[in-house]
Amino acid sequence: MMEARQLAQKVGAALFAGDRASKDFMRMELLSCEPGRAVMRMQVRQEMLNGHRICHGGFIFTLADSTFAFACNSRNVSTVASGASIEFLKPAHEGDVLTCEGVEQMLQGRHGVYDMKVTNQSGETVAMFRGKSAQIKGSVLPQGEAQ
Amino acid sequence: MMEARQLAQKVGAALFAGDRASKDFMRMELLSCEPGRAVMRMQVRQEMLNGHRICHGGFIFTLADSTFAFACNSRNVSTVASGASIEFLKPAHEGDVLTCEGVEQMLQGRHGVYDMKVTNQSGETVAMFRGKSAQIKGSVLPQGEAQ
Amino acid sequence: MMEARQLAQKVGAALFAGDRASKDFMRMELLSCEPGRAVMRMQVRQEMLNGHRICHGGFIFTLADSTFAFACNSRNVSTVASGASIEFLKPAHEGDVLTCEGVEQMLQGRHGVYDMKVTNQSGETVAMFRGKSAQIKGSVLPQGEAQ
Amino acid sequence: MMEARQLAQKVGAALFAGDRASKDFMRMELLSCEPGRAVMRMQVRQEMLNGHRICHGGFIFTLADSTFAFACNSRNVSTVASGASIEFLKPAHEGDVLTCEGVEQMLQGRHGVYDMKVTNQSGETVAMFRGKSAQIKGSVLPQGEAQ
Repeated sequence: MMEARQLAQKVGAALFAGDRASKDFMRMELLSCEPGRAVMRMQVRQEMLNGHRICHGGFIFTLADSTFAFACNSRNVSTVASGASIEFLKPAHEGDVLTCEGVEQMLQGRHGVYDMKVTNQSGETVAMFRGKSAQIKGSVLPQGEAQ
Repeated sequence: MMEARQLAQKVGAALFAGDRASKDFMRMELLSCEPGRAVMRMQVRQEMLNGHRICHGGFIFTLADSTFAFACNSRNVSTVASGASIEFLKPAHEGDVLTCEGVEQMLQGRHGVYDMKVTNQSGETVAMFRGKSAQIKGSVLPQGEAQ
Repeated sequence: MMEARQLAQKVGAALFAGDRASKDFMRMELLSCEPGRAVMRMQVRQEMLNGHRICHGGFIFTLADSTFAFACNSRNVSTVASGASIEFLKPAHEGDVLTCEGVEQMLQGRHGVYDMKVTNQSGETVAMFRGKSAQIKGSVLPQGEAQ
Repeated sequence: MMEARQLAQKVGAALFAGDRASKDFMRMELLSCEPGRAVMRMQVRQEMLNGHRICHGGFIFTLADSTFAFACNSRNVSTVASGASIEFLKPAHEGDVLTCEGVEQMLQGRHGVYDMKVTNQSGETVAMFRGKSAQIKGSVLPQGEAQ
């Protein structure tokens, strides 16, 4: 059987390849996908600004939610978000480079809790996100490929 | 002084006109903006699908977060989100038309609580969102225009 | 079959009779239990004060959590809380009489969302609580008694 | 000036001595109070059981909320909870010994985020709690005593 680290990387690559929303529409980069952890990055573009001329909070959430998805699917068990909460701590502006790093805090039975932190290029915390996951049927990679 | 209902409509229109993220990038429609309430609509497009081929939860959040912004700015006091939580109840698929309706539950001092419900074209609840708002300095419309 | 309203009342009475924590330890009163709704009341006593000499937030949460339990068990399907969030809006002081009123916002399949509002004797909002419920096996009243 | 570690311990002791709710009513023990961290313990007694004969979720929250209070007041700046969320992962039963350990995740300006984990005597996670703090005026220990 494939080692957990190698499997997470392979699962991350496969999931990202099919994730039109994160890859093409939002233009995120997947920097790493390890067992129970992931890191993603995204630059704030003009089209992401809201009526207050700051980055729409929805896209900060979306970056965190994508990173959460990679962290919680990293063991090749199909997993979805059942809910999440976010605290917005600093606004993000056009051109800012946001990095989200997230880690599994708890996985018990089918349910997990994952914490994501979004920081800007100066290292300031922009948002903190907590996601709750639920495993569903199936795997990201076919069982044959995961061996 | 302008009547509250008319002011909310005018504030909504001005905020929406400058909200590149909601209007142009996400292609939402603002269906109504009343004092403490708003309704928006968005169709799920192919570019919004994630690696599981369902609508990325981040965009469902973004629809709710935009609607929340219109509801909490509707009294012409500049207001931002300090945090939010969301429960994902049903997946949304390509072509689904999502409507978000939201209402102020509480406004005490500078802080408010707003509840948003996202439903699909069959009337099923896709997500429930609770946002916390904080008033900041300034107004959406210049004071002269709001009179 | 018993009418929903009458059943909720009977379920509430039975659940409250066995709820040592709410009835005896916290000394709450159950003012009403209807289908998907409940109202409870509790006075802040000296033993509930924390190191800042205000009511411990945990007991405000506990009042809301109890009211939530009555609202979500009111249809005689055994239901537990999977999670909750609370916003603390005003402190409560010794002697304050807190009333919590809560209502079902959504019930889809086994999962529900319930909103509770805690107010003081002056009608000010002390806290807002949102609970997520999950139905489990069994009923509060034996099936025979519920008919 | 007193070293941070020593100050946290002194603040914890002073706050606990005046915290009737945690000490006398709930009978919690304060196991440690360090800068941005705290650990507390509580045994589930019969009077804490609800109508389902398990520990009332409100008291699990209360244990976490107390631990959060010690962690966020540990630097001797008076701090209160503005809100919190909790996920209930396993029921707690009569006689169970619950330990809550919590740590500061973020402190920026007046606002902080603290994560608490409640485990039982078998090391199973009973609940996860995230608290949001807001600093207010004043200090726990008079300035003179803190030097």
